[in-house]
Amino acid sequence: MLYGIVVFPEKHVQDIANSWRRRHDPHYAAIPAHLTVRDAEEWTEEQLQLAVAHLEQVTSKLPAFSIHLNRVSTFYPVNHVLYLALQDTDAMQKLQEQVCSGPLITNEGKYVYTPHVTIGQELSADELHDLYGNLRMQSIDLASKIDRVHLLYQTDNGSWTAYQSFLLRG
Amino acid sequence: MLYGIVVFPEKHVQDIANSWRRRHDPHYAAIPAHLTVRDAEEWTEEQLQLAVAHLEQVTSKLPAFSIHLNRVSTFYPVNHVLYLALQDTDAMQKLQEQVCSGPLITNEGKYVYTPHVTIGQELSADELHDLYGNLRMQSIDLASKIDRVHLLYQTDNGSWTAYQSFLLRG
Repeated sequence: MLYGIVVFPEKHVQDIANSWRRRHDPHYAAIPAHLTVRDAEEWTEEQLQLAVAHLEQVTSKLPAFSIHLNRVSTFYPVNHVLYLALQDTDAMQKLQEQVCSGPLITNEGKYVYTPHVTIGQELSADELHDLYGNLRMQSIDLASKIDRVHLLYQTDNGSWTAYQSFLLRG
Repeated sequence: MLYGIVVFPEKHVQDIANSWRRRHDPHYAAIPAHLTVRDAEEWTEEQLQLAVAHLEQVTSKLPAFSIHLNRVSTFYPVNHVLYLALQDTDAMQKLQEQVCSGPLITNEGKYVYTPHVTIGQELSADELHDLYGNLRMQSIDLASKIDRVHLLYQTDNGSWTAYQSFLLRG
């Protein structure tokens, strides 16, 4: 089964992200607005049990924190993605490092983790430039508490279901 | 904010429910296939904290169990809903009684709680009868472990986001 790990920003951030996602993100209906912590991966039941134990352990030592989203940015030309970017990525990077360690280590260690809330993807280059041209000028000033991570699994229709939440209780 | 409490059946049940939901349930994209334990209700932050403490407490004493879905049924004419029905509803009824007690008591106590997985709703009477006529003849034989409940909240677009999971650890 495919499992992924995310954090959900607070509702007021999701509502704003959704106003763009509705039109510009084909995954809009598959998962609520989120920040990916660990990409989807196929796990056995045994790997799931190891992952749950690992998440219990690392979240017990991580404190809750706040994020501040202050602009729209893009991964173009690598990916045709528009996203809400974080002013300061340190706390999310630390969370991602801790989650993606031990049994959940990935071989993406050589890439920089860029926490983000996707608001558009799979856009044509023209669409992306039009939209980015407009949105980069908008003043964005959104804060959200992050005090838990969510382990999700994917059903055959591509949608994600909540499996378990882990409170940051450090 | 609107909060609701559900259990999700295992993925193999969701996949089958989704094959019908896709065409016959307008809420298909808003929430994965589920059994409602407590209907959506507007809560303050303080009510949320009371609810979380209550759910922690009641789930600590409830054991995990299995459900067996053995037929398609309908709430017609009260509601134009088609659903997968449980062979034995005792364990889900007990779960619902425990969850909907204390700070989460509802004034629906006089109605019988009928746990179900909706596969179609807001159907015209004609559609409902056509579909029910076909589906009631199908042999349904689906089992799922139920070992956690999920507290969800609704965003402005009508979709539900996971807030917290509570393992049945009695």
